[in-house]
Amino acid sequence: MPPSGVKALFFDVFGTLVDWRAGVARHVELVLKPHGYFIDWMAFADAWRERYQPGMEEVRSGHIPYTKLDILHRRMLAQIAPRFGLEQLDGAVLDGLTLAWHRLDAWKDVPAGLARLRERYLIAPVSNGNTLLMCDLARRNNFHWDAILGADVAKDFKPKPMVYLAAADAFDLSPTQCMMCAAHSSDLISAASCGLRTAFIARPQEQPGVSETAPAALVDVIAESTEDLAAKLGA
Amino acid sequence: MPPSGVKALFFDVFGTLVDWRAGVARHVELVLKPHGYFIDWMAFADAWRERYQPGMEEVRSGHIPYTKLDILHRRMLAQIAPRFGLEQLDGAVLDGLTLAWHRLDAWKDVPAGLARLRERYLIAPVSNGNTLLMCDLARRNNFHWDAILGADVAKDFKPKPMVYLAAADAFDLSPTQCMMCAAHSSDLISAASCGLRTAFIARPQEQPGVSETAPAALVDVIAESTEDLAAKLGA
Repeated sequence: MPPSGVKALFFDVFGTLVDWRAGVARHVELVLKPHGYFIDWMAFADAWRERYQPGMEEVRSGHIPYTKLDILHRRMLAQIAPRFGLEQLDGAVLDGLTLAWHRLDAWKDVPAGLARLRERYLIAPVSNGNTLLMCDLARRNNFHWDAILGADVAKDFKPKPMVYLAAADAFDLSPTQCMMCAAHSSDLISAASCGLRTAFIARPQEQPGVSETAPAALVDVIAESTEDLAAKLGA
Repeated sequence: MPPSGVKALFFDVFGTLVDWRAGVARHVELVLKPHGYFIDWMAFADAWRERYQPGMEEVRSGHIPYTKLDILHRRMLAQIAPRFGLEQLDGAVLDGLTLAWHRLDAWKDVPAGLARLRERYLIAPVSNGNTLLMCDLARRNNFHWDAILGADVAKDFKPKPMVYLAAADAFDLSPTQCMMCAAHSSDLISAASCGLRTAFIARPQEQPGVSETAPAALVDVIAESTEDLAAKLGA
């Protein structure tokens, strides 16, 4: 039985809704091949993503003020470039590479699954991505969000409690009226500690061998896809 | 010739996109008639709206902290209720009346006009209405916004500069890449002073005899509707 009283669904985006790994690898290859580079594109995507949590931690810890993820992605890229022999690339090319994160494709269930869920619930991304990044992914993949919530609204990054609480407040809801939906237990554990309901959406294909296949904590719903989530929530 | 380099259109909502006067009058009548009240519904809508600027001025002046428009609307309602003999109504009925602002209909050109503009531009409301209020109006009228910007994002009310500037920043644009579209010159004058481009959309039907039929300042575009705006912007 899904929890009653839920009015809004909040979605993690990178990994849960969109395939960042294949998308980043594809875009980087597209940009760098004409410059004569041949590297392990998937390894490059993984290396970039590995800088993700440390990059945001500087903001979460208060070491630097809130900084949009686009800008952090660009800094992370500068950090990993030398490891892949890319230290000669000029700034404009690195800027172009950073657009990779705006051009990711959704897992195939997502456009229809979100549309079905929106018939019954308010839906919003609660991602660490900045507003324009979320808008670009929505346009590319035909998501119709009610609002763009998440890091830019809270001026901090998940899993800080304010990010979940600011999202609930934007919809004038209590945390228990909101459900966080993500492929990562750490996100769900933090949301639950703020009082939100939780749904685990399994994405073992995010990083095969690394990604979670089952939640590492108690959650309210376990789903195999957004379509499955819709079925389990009666939407 | 429309100005070049514009990437995003920001819309005022009350009056510019939706008919608050007829919508509020209709909802108030629907709620109060069963309670045996018969008042001048249009006059009631006008009286409520007259409290709009003074209500927000308390926030703009720093006299009270940022407060969502839904809550201000409820306070304004308590102020005007005695003038209409409604002082006996209990709080729950007044709460229900306040939902009037969530149930307004768009002027008939708007759904198609916005859809057409969205093919070429990022579009967002930059209204003094809070996020959920904007979401409810969007769902009712089939608007597909890229994001909900405006007062809740800036934590202040138009015509304070921060509201326009925070909206541009959310889309990673400079003010000159954004165009404020409104039926009220005061809104456009403030937006222009922040560097935004401006479009006047005439809505003489908003409050016949009171509403502007032409802009009171230089603007970049003058349109008779959102469809006309789309034509003039080449969308």
